[in-house]
Parts: sequence; C-alpha cells; structure tokens
Amino acid sequence: MSANTLGHLFRVTTFGESHGVALGAVVDGCPAGVAFDPALLQAMLDRRRPGQSAVVSARDEADVVEVLSGVHDGKTLGTPIAMCVRNRDARPGDYAAIAAAPRPGHADDTWRTKRGHVDPRGGGRASGRETVARVMAAAVARMLLAEVAPTLAVVGYARAIGPFSLDDADAAAVTDTASVDQHPTRFPSADADRVAALLADAKRDGKSYGGIAELRIEGVPAGLGQPVFRKLKADLAGAMLGVGATAGVEFGDGFAAAQAEGSEFHRRESSTHYGGIRGGIATGEPIVLRVAFKPTATVLDEAKRGRHDPCIVPRALPVLEAMAWLVAADHWLLARTDRTDTLR
Amino acid sequence: MSANTLGHLFRVTTFGESHGVALGAVVDGCPAGVAFDPALLQAMLDRRRPGQSAVVSARDEADVVEVLSGVHDGKTLGTPIAMCVRNRDARPGDYAAIAAAPRPGHADDTWRTKRGHVDPRGGGRASGRETVARVMAAAVARMLLAEVAPTLAVVGYARAIGPFSLDDADAAAVTDTASVDQHPTRFPSADADRVAALLADAKRDGKSYGGIAELRIEGVPAGLGQPVFRKLKADLAGAMLGVGATAGVEFGDGFAAAQAEGSEFHRRESSTHYGGIRGGIATGEPIVLRVAFKPTATVLDEAKRGRHDPCIVPRALPVLEAMAWLVAADHWLLARTDRTDTLR
Amino acid sequence: MSANTLGHLFRVTTFGESHGVALGAVVDGCPAGVAFDPALLQAMLDRRRPGQSAVVSARDEADVVEVLSGVHDGKTLGTPIAMCVRNRDARPGDYAAIAAAPRPGHADDTWRTKRGHVDPRGGGRASGRETVARVMAAAVARMLLAEVAPTLAVVGYARAIGPFSLDDADAAAVTDTASVDQHPTRFPSADADRVAALLADAKRDGKSYGGIAELRIEGVPAGLGQPVFRKLKADLAGAMLGVGATAGVEFGDGFAAAQAEGSEFHRRESSTHYGGIRGGIATGEPIVLRVAFKPTATVLDEAKRGRHDPCIVPRALPVLEAMAWLVAADHWLLARTDRTDTLR
Amino acid sequence: MSANTLGHLFRVTTFGESHGVALGAVVDGCPAGVAFDPALLQAMLDRRRPGQSAVVSARDEADVVEVLSGVHDGKTLGTPIAMCVRNRDARPGDYAAIAAAPRPGHADDTWRTKRGHVDPRGGGRASGRETVARVMAAAVARMLLAEVAPTLAVVGYARAIGPFSLDDADAAAVTDTASVDQHPTRFPSADADRVAALLADAKRDGKSYGGIAELRIEGVPAGLGQPVFRKLKADLAGAMLGVGATAGVEFGDGFAAAQAEGSEFHRRESSTHYGGIRGGIATGEPIVLRVAFKPTATVLDEAKRGRHDPCIVPRALPVLEAMAWLVAADHWLLARTDRTDTLR
Repeated sequence: MSANTLGHLFRVTTFGESHGVALGAVVDGCPAGVAFDPALLQAMLDRRRPGQSAVVSARDEADVVEVLSGVHDGKTLGTPIAMCVRNRDARPGDYAAIAAAPRPGHADDTWRTKRGHVDPRGGGRASGRETVARVMAAAVARMLLAEVAPTLAVVGYARAIGPFSLDDADAAAVTDTASVDQHPTRFPSADADRVAALLADAKRDGKSYGGIAELRIEGVPAGLGQPVFRKLKADLAGAMLGVGATAGVEFGDGFAAAQAEGSEFHRRESSTHYGGIRGGIATGEPIVLRVAFKPTATVLDEAKRGRHDPCIVPRALPVLEAMAWLVAADHWLLARTDRTDTLR
Repeated sequence: MSANTLGHLFRVTTFGESHGVALGAVVDGCPAGVAFDPALLQAMLDRRRPGQSAVVSARDEADVVEVLSGVHDGKTLGTPIAMCVRNRDARPGDYAAIAAAPRPGHADDTWRTKRGHVDPRGGGRASGRETVARVMAAAVARMLLAEVAPTLAVVGYARAIGPFSLDDADAAAVTDTASVDQHPTRFPSADADRVAALLADAKRDGKSYGGIAELRIEGVPAGLGQPVFRKLKADLAGAMLGVGATAGVEFGDGFAAAQAEGSEFHRRESSTHYGGIRGGIATGEPIVLRVAFKPTATVLDEAKRGRHDPCIVPRALPVLEAMAWLVAADHWLLARTDRTDTLR
Repeated sequence: MSANTLGHLFRVTTFGESHGVALGAVVDGCPAGVAFDPALLQAMLDRRRPGQSAVVSARDEADVVEVLSGVHDGKTLGTPIAMCVRNRDARPGDYAAIAAAPRPGHADDTWRTKRGHVDPRGGGRASGRETVARVMAAAVARMLLAEVAPTLAVVGYARAIGPFSLDDADAAAVTDTASVDQHPTRFPSADADRVAALLADAKRDGKSYGGIAELRIEGVPAGLGQPVFRKLKADLAGAMLGVGATAGVEFGDGFAAAQAEGSEFHRRESSTHYGGIRGGIATGEPIVLRVAFKPTATVLDEAKRGRHDPCIVPRALPVLEAMAWLVAADHWLLARTDRTDTLR
Repeated sequence: MSANTLGHLFRVTTFGESHGVALGAVVDGCPAGVAFDPALLQAMLDRRRPGQSAVVSARDEADVVEVLSGVHDGKTLGTPIAMCVRNRDARPGDYAAIAAAPRPGHADDTWRTKRGHVDPRGGGRASGRETVARVMAAAVARMLLAEVAPTLAVVGYARAIGPFSLDDADAAAVTDTASVDQHPTRFPSADADRVAALLADAKRDGKSYGGIAELRIEGVPAGLGQPVFRKLKADLAGAMLGVGATAGVEFGDGFAAAQAEGSEFHRRESSTHYGGIRGGIATGEPIVLRVAFKPTATVLDEAKRGRHDPCIVPRALPVLEAMAWLVAADHWLLARTDRTDTLR
C-alpha cells in the first residue's frame, strides 16, 4: 500500500528505520532542469537535526546526505532523485529493553498488533528520525518552487509552548526562518528566555510539554488546490497530521471561527481568518495554519531520561515546513493541467 | 488528477455539479458478496437531506438513488458500484446573478481563477450538494464493514453551535445516531430548545453561526492505519477537511493537549485523550475527533436570504460520518495485507 | 483496487455490467475549457455498436449517451465528466442457462472462482459490451487532443481476418477511418467482398475466425511517453491487452524484428520498423501497432448461435482506437511537467 | 508522474542512472514477516549480470546489494525495503562523445527532446543497467510468493535467436532455470552450440540479432488478475514492454491464434493455446508468453564495438522473469480482497 508515498505528480517515497542502516527518500516527478542546491539540502537537514541546543534531544547524527541519482551537472535530470543519510548514532543497547516491554505513549504496541512483531530498534518507522527523509525530499520541492513559483515562502515558529503563547503582534512580526532560529526554542518573543528556562528545567526534571506550531505559507499562486477530496486544506491537514505527536490542525481562525457569527465574520476586511483557502483553492492570500502537539511520550522512557525533547515543537517546525513544501510542489504541478487556455 | 477520488483499495470517485443533471459516485474495490441494503442507503441520504426542519436550509431534493451497476440479487458483484441521484430542485434563476458577481465567502472567484470560467449554476462542485455522492459511497462502506468489522460504529453530534457547547457528560451520554436525530439541531442536551431557537432567529434575521462537530468511532479493530503518510489520523484529518466550510480538526484532547505536561498526560488511566490512535495506528480504543466549522457564507447571499443554513453543523454531521466510514473501509482493506501469518 | 480505472492524469473509471441497468464512464482530469462535441461522442459510439451489418453480431442497442456532469455551455468544466448509456436489449432469458453451466471459452468460470459467484447476466464486466464505456471516455480524450495536439490522429483497420491478410500497399493506402468504414469488415482491400462472404458464411455455419487489427497513430508529439515502467509502448500494450479476446500486440516490425540482424535493421532509412517509439518515448514518427485476436468463443454458445460475431476484429477496432486515444491523452498531460524551461 | 513505480499494493519504485552513483529499488507494500533470503537476491542479480560468458557484453559490475531498510532479524518488517548497488565500472570516457552525437537506435535523442538535455553518462535511465533495480525488487516478490503461493514458478528461455528457433519439444522439456542456465545462450537445445557460435561471430564482426524470449508461469492460483484495465495479460504485457528493446508480446497461441477458426480452437483438449488467462483472470493453467526483441542497437556504437551484446535475449530473460514476479506479487495481494467470504 502507498503508506510511504506522498503526492500525485511530485511523488515522495521514504524508507528507513530509525536505527537501521540508512534513511532515505526517492523523489519521482520533479521536472528536469531544476538547479540542484546541495547547500540548501544540507541546511534544511541541519535545521531538523537534534543536538543543536540545550532544549532539544542530545542525540547527534551528522546527517550527511548522499545523492544517489537524478542529478547531473548541478541540474535535475527528470529521473528519480534518491537521497539517503546513514545512521551513525544507533545505540541498540538503549533499545534492548523495548522488545520485552513496549514503552507507554509510543507506538511499540500498536506495531506489534499490526505487524506481528516489534522492531526493537527504536520503533522503526514510528520514530521521529524518519522525518529526515521528508526534509530531504522537501528540499527538492523547494528548489523546484524557487524556480517556478519564486514568491512562495514557508515560515514556521512556535505559537505556544506549554503555558506560554505568542501574541498576535509577535507572530505577525516574524518575517523569515532565520529570525526564528535565533531562538533555540523557535519562540520569537521577549519571553523566549523564560521559555528556554522552562524547557531546560523540564529536561532535567523528566518533564515534557505540548505546544502549537504555526506556519505561514505566503505567495501561494491563486488557483492552487483541487476541489472535493484534494482541497488544499485537506492535503495540508493530512500532511501535518502525518507527523508524529500531532493532535490537531486548524486554518485561519480555526476553532475560534466555530464561535463566530457569520454576517460579521464574512464581512471583515482582512481575510486571514479564512486561512487563504476558499472552496479548497488558494486565494493568493497567506495561508495560516496551526498544529497542536502532545507532550512528548519519551519523558516516560527511563532509558532516555535526560536525553528526551522537553517539547517537540522546536524540532517539529522544520518537518512541518517540509510537509508544506511537499504539498505545495505537488499542487503546483497538478495545477499545470487545470485549463486548456494555458496549455496551448 | 485524482481530485475526485478517495481511497486506495476502497476507491470512491464522485461526480456532478450542484445544479447539473445528476450527482453520483462510483465505488470500485468493494469485495464481492456484501449484502446490499438499499434501505440503509436511502436512510443515510435522507439524513443528509436539507428541508428536514426549520433549522436547516429549505431546499428540497427527493434524492432517490438509482443503482446503475455492481449489485445483483442483493449482493455486490465485486464490480464498480455506480449510484446517482437526479437534481430536481435546480433554480437557475436564483443563480443567474452569480455569473456577473461572484458571491463573497464562496468559491466562485477561486474557481474562476483556476478554471477560467465560473459555472453560474450554484458553484458546481464547491456546493454542499456534492456531498450527496459521498454519503452514497459511505453507505456501501458501511455495508461492507457491517459484515467484516461489525463492532465498528460511527456516531456524530454537534459539540458546539455558536455560543452553546455540549458538556462532557452530555457528549458521553450519546449512544447512537437515532438519539442525536431526535434533535433537529443534533445538539443532544437540555439546551437543545434554546439552540433551536437561536438558529430559527438567525435564519429569520440573516445571521449564521459556526460550530463544532464531534465524531466517536468505536470498535475500530486494533492495527488499522498505516505508518508515515497514511497514519489513520492523517487520513481522517484529510477526509474531514475535504468537507466544505471546515476550519480545523483535532483528535482526543487536541489543542488542549498542547498545554499539557507530559509526565501527567501520559500516565492518565484513560487514553481517550490520545484519540484512540498511536503512531498513526488504531489502538482499539474509541477514536474521538472534532471538526470546526465556519459560519455559513450563504448568509451574505441576498438571493438565498431566508433559505440559508443558519449553522452548517447539523447538516454536516452525516457527511463527516460518511467520510469516517470511507476512511475506515479503505484502511480495513489495506490492513488485509499487513502481515504474512494472517495471509496463509 | 483500481481495476476499473485507467490513467494517471486523464483518469477514466468505467462501470456497468453487460445486462445491468447502464454502462458508463467517469473522466476525471480533463482540463476545463475543452469544446465538448456531442456529435463526435455519438458517432464514436455508433461505430462501436453491433448490428451495423451482416458480418457483426445482431444485438441492437441504441446506445444513446446521457452526459450527467462536467459539461456546461458546450465546454468542459474541469470537473468529472460522467456519461452513461442504458441497456435496452437485455435478454435475461438467453443467459439463464449460464448460471447452471459456465460457457466454454468465456470468463464465467474464472469469475466464479474469483468472486464466489457467477453473474448470470451475460458475464458482467467480462462482456464486450463493457467497452461502450471506454469509447465514451475516448471521445473526451479526442476532444481534448483535437485542441492541444491537433496533428494527432488514430486510424485502425483489419490487417488480417482468418486466412486473409492485407498487403503493405493496401495498409499504407489507408488515410482515414471513413475510408475503412466503407467496408463492413473494415478490411480495406480488393479482397473485401471475399472476406465479407467468409464471415457471412461463418455466421450461418457457427464458425468464427481470429484476426489482426492494425493501428497507426500519427502526429504524436515527440517526447510523449515516460521512461521505465510507463514507456509509451508499455502503456499502449497494457491498454490493448486490456481488451477482451486479444492474444498479443506488436510494434513496428514486431515479431519479425526478432529475426532481423542489427547492423542492417538499425541503418535502414525509414524507421517505421521501430514503431515510432524509442526508449519508450515517441520520436514523432507514426506509431504502428498490431493486435492479435483469438476467434470469438461465442461460437460455442448454443444460445447465441447465429447472433455471434464471426470475427471480432471489425467491431474491436473502434475499441482499440479508443484505448489509443486514452493513452495518448494521459501521456500528453503527463508530459506537461517534463521540464522546467517549458513551465515558466 | 509515476513513471518509475510499478504495482498497486506491491509497489516498486526504482532509481538510478546507468553511470551515476548507484541504482536501487524501494519495495513498499511487502507484508511483514516474510523470510528474507539474501542469497536468492544475490543469485538473481548474478544471473542478470553481464560478463558471464563470451556471448554477452563484457562490462563487469560486481552488483553487490546493500539492503538499506525494511529487514530485521531475517524477516521483512512491513516497512519499505530499500536496496541499492553501487556503480563501479562506469567509464565516462566511453560516453563523452554521446553528448555531441546521440547514438542511432538509442534513446539519446528522444530524451533530449523530452527533457531538454542529454545525460552524457550512457543514456541514464534508458540503459539496460536500470533493470538491476527491477531484479532486486523481484527477488523480494519471489520471497513473498514462496511463502504464500509456493506452487508459483517462473521459468524463461530463449525461444528464438536470430535465425534459430526452439522447437516445441525442447521448449516443453524445460523444467527449471538451472537447466536453462547451463547454456550461455539460454537456448536449451541440441543447436545450442551453433547458436553460441553465431553470437560469438556476431560479437567479433559487429553484428547483432533479434530474438524471442518465452516465459512459462506455472502454479498461478486460479482467480489472479482483475477485470477490465488490469487483466492479468494486460499487466503482464505492460510489464514486458516496459523492458528495453522489446517489439511485441503474445500469450498462448498469440499471433498464430489470429489465423485460427473458432469451433476448432475452443474445443481443443489442452488450453495452453489460451495462455492460462481467460477474461483477464488466471485459470490455474500455465501462462505462456513470448516477448520479441529487436537486434541490439549498440552494434552501431563505435565506442562499444566488441563490448556489445550480440543478442539481448539471454540477458533479458532474468529481467522478464523479474517483471513476471512483480506482476504476480501485486495481483496476489490485490486478490486478497476479492470477496467477503474469504475475508471473515
């Protein structure tokens, strides 16, 4: 089944277990002639990597990508682009106990039910490590869109971490990823230090917090998205909840819209409360979405105590951004055949 | 592109514009030998139909299904099951003005951008009427699951309508769809009459409200769902946000989980706060999800003033339930090939 | 499973049993704005219809198409185009005996093995009648290509019928379908009358003959086709052998090329011996292919004696042409995203 | 587009250019728990490898597979199985001239048209070297089928090489692959030495020959295959013509059946003239198919003179067998959901 493939035209298939030989992605459907930017690829992986600061997990993986196919002389060939990274920091010893006792809050038991086995090496595909492959593929999506839809930009930041929430002004002030990354917590606010302290304490004390990530997708060409089952919000929602530890997604005003009265709601000047999508199709306005994360379950894992992520949101942001790039690339290609007058 | 097809093994393709000749669905992949229940099919369509009460839109469509193929002697043949309903209540006059002036809050303008035209007949595929095809297909999914996973049940109800919220006790007390349908608002609470009055007033006064629908999917066989991109929550989220006027979806504790602390959260006795899915795979516990709806935009449409839905949640519930049946049927079939020891 | 869907971007799903209520097709992925030509649609169906002459089966079906969706004001909407024809000439009496005794040479027994039942109404989906849906869909493919690739033309004729073979000069002289259709046998040669007499005798005497259909696909834009698994010849071969009673397909010199010596073969001036495809990709030269048909098995069916097709090739030609149009339309859309320099 | 993916449930995605870093395959959809047999995998690759004898191309690649994911403790995990082999014998020097002058009979020019570039490194994906990935994937298909459909066997041999043809008795006498492989030409006949001499001369003299490969697929479970577009013969035909240098495929009596008379043809005792498929569905009888190959075009390539394959059939056989294993595995999984009475 296509459980490991995303997209209809820009198709990504990922492989690899968290503590197996390697993780990788095959991108099929990227047009020929896209300038391939290895530095962007590596930079996107580095942003995803744990071990960057005191507030994220200490596991260190160099994550050096090897491009196995699909690129020649700095350009994509139109053939499948296969990329992989080797696993170097596997500590099977840490995971030996898992075979005997599935960890609470993890997927060990559901996989045993499903597949008739437990992969004792860190949960296999259910590990957050799997997302390295998504980020590799997203780098290719971004290279493609940089050429064909250069206005398109994705920027993400922590909207809430445990009890802390970013206010609207701070959220609106975010202009790019670099400014977000100045904060290890990716919580761009005057409260950033207090949030960092909260997470450092949590890590020491074996605690963890939930949080909310917010993405702004700007410069989306109007008309992207498809009706009915592949509405842009449907594909984005599916992509976001395909990331581990997520508990919900909302667009524009989201759950707050549920309490609104319509003759007010629809007459507002700004339409950011729509989330930039109407009838499933991009309006050209920014798409704003938020993803809720549960507190990490690793906190319960005695073996990883002290090496866990006290809040997954900072590390999840590059992955959510990756999913947005992947969905955008696929929809951009799909929209090439929307109408005949642009085809001739 | 596969914008109008859902599912990998239980595949549903829908067709039809809201004011065209007919709407329909083709279900491909339903196994042979399923008892076909025309009464269930018609009953599910009747629940979706507007005109049932003062609190929903007055447009009346008999929605009598014709089964064109795939069924013989009361059993499915294993061939595509095509079903359609004719449109009878089309009032092109109501919609003539749309061609000249796209309606605010509707998808008329995004479709014009995308397809280079506006279908003046009520928005074409972006209309809520398109969902009749989904409900037809879902009836087949339900017939299949009734035989192969008879414990599986889907029940939905309004969790919030405008300023009113159902409390946890009332939500927990809901046992089946019939009890929900006793209330025209599908808000099963002592406040039901007040909610009905709110909506009747809104209809008269040209107002509309957002709201929240809640679904409980019970008796899901443990192991349903696939890892990575086809996590059960990912597919359900995509399916739910493929319904018009939605603004978000959450599972279990959802956005509230974002504020939780983990060593507490993960040690709770009950795991309903997980939403019944872990690592993307069903645990066997009930799956609880909520979908946020924006206030209906039709409120702004002078032509339809007084015939609009003051809150879409009551009418959307049968559609959300339909999407849940469709996702469950597809995942049930997908899980047939999970492991070899059950294949021999 | 997607047994009843063809194509990746120009997607066709067919439905209907030969003696059920109706047969139909849903075309998803046709761009918006294509001029819809009902006369072409009906003409293509009429060419497929039996009962046109003494040399084909006498069953008569008016085959009047109803377009249920996807077309408005003479243009495609970009939404799914559903079309169906009603069955009018079903004679269940003829088929009653089938339930008791599967017919030799038919699929009745293989379906019973597979699905656990026999549809006693004429074999269900395995009947040639199913192909009416393919021809409907192909008419839409042809309307699309008429606008975006107007040089593309498909012409088919009988290359062999039983002991008769068309010589190269007669084959090369065929310029269009109309000239082929002047002969009820679609065998455009001075021998046409003798072939017609052979088939009339066979019909009377309960005999049937195999034959070979030849298609020339001209004006194919160079570059159509995809490498590896979706080579143009691979998709065409799969499409042709998806038609009933076929026994083989060959391109260009075909099986004769198997006996050739290469330094001769590859140095010839003309490259029609290649069949117009190299590396799976169209060269721009005509694609020539031949499909072998077994003698019809209906000859053994006492119930249909005298109503059978003495050779299926004349009737199969419109179906093979339909399959070629469908493959061409899908590949034409797929090729839109081959390279970035044509995308900007 | 899915040009590089084959299958619906047993899904294979291949990657790699002939002279790039590596070639590989990702198998998604193989159930968990299949015993993984590295020796079978390597043996199948070794059979495909050139350089085995004087009658095939002299290029030598060790083709040592690295399994990157999806296998643990000797069993498949149910996760994607990624495998790759490194390219070691790349001689870019040989190919430098190609960029300037596309080779006659090769796909260099069609790729340039399509993708806007020529990959000067041996034609990229159009090279026969790409098939190493298919054989890797087929090894996994075979491991699966060995457990769930152990009667299934695929055996292939050269049916014709240039002017030599295998007679029916020799073909019928072939029982397994090992006996075929005793002959470097894979032409199992008393004429084998003469065929070997013909090919050795051709290699020396810069000549090449076409030929015909024959496959017998035995022990196919009755009921495999799907109606309409995914008839077993359609999928097999598409798979076979997805191999380079092919010119046609036929089943059972094939093109000879085109000359047959039906009341004779269908009454024969043996039904091998059907090719073991009826109505698109396997009858349980052996499936016999033949694939026609053009003479290799490499004969025209001055740079490779003396290193070319004088006839591709011996080397193509392991690839055709691989395609048969892949199609069989996908159809076997698809058939799991044919009917409800076997699902409960």
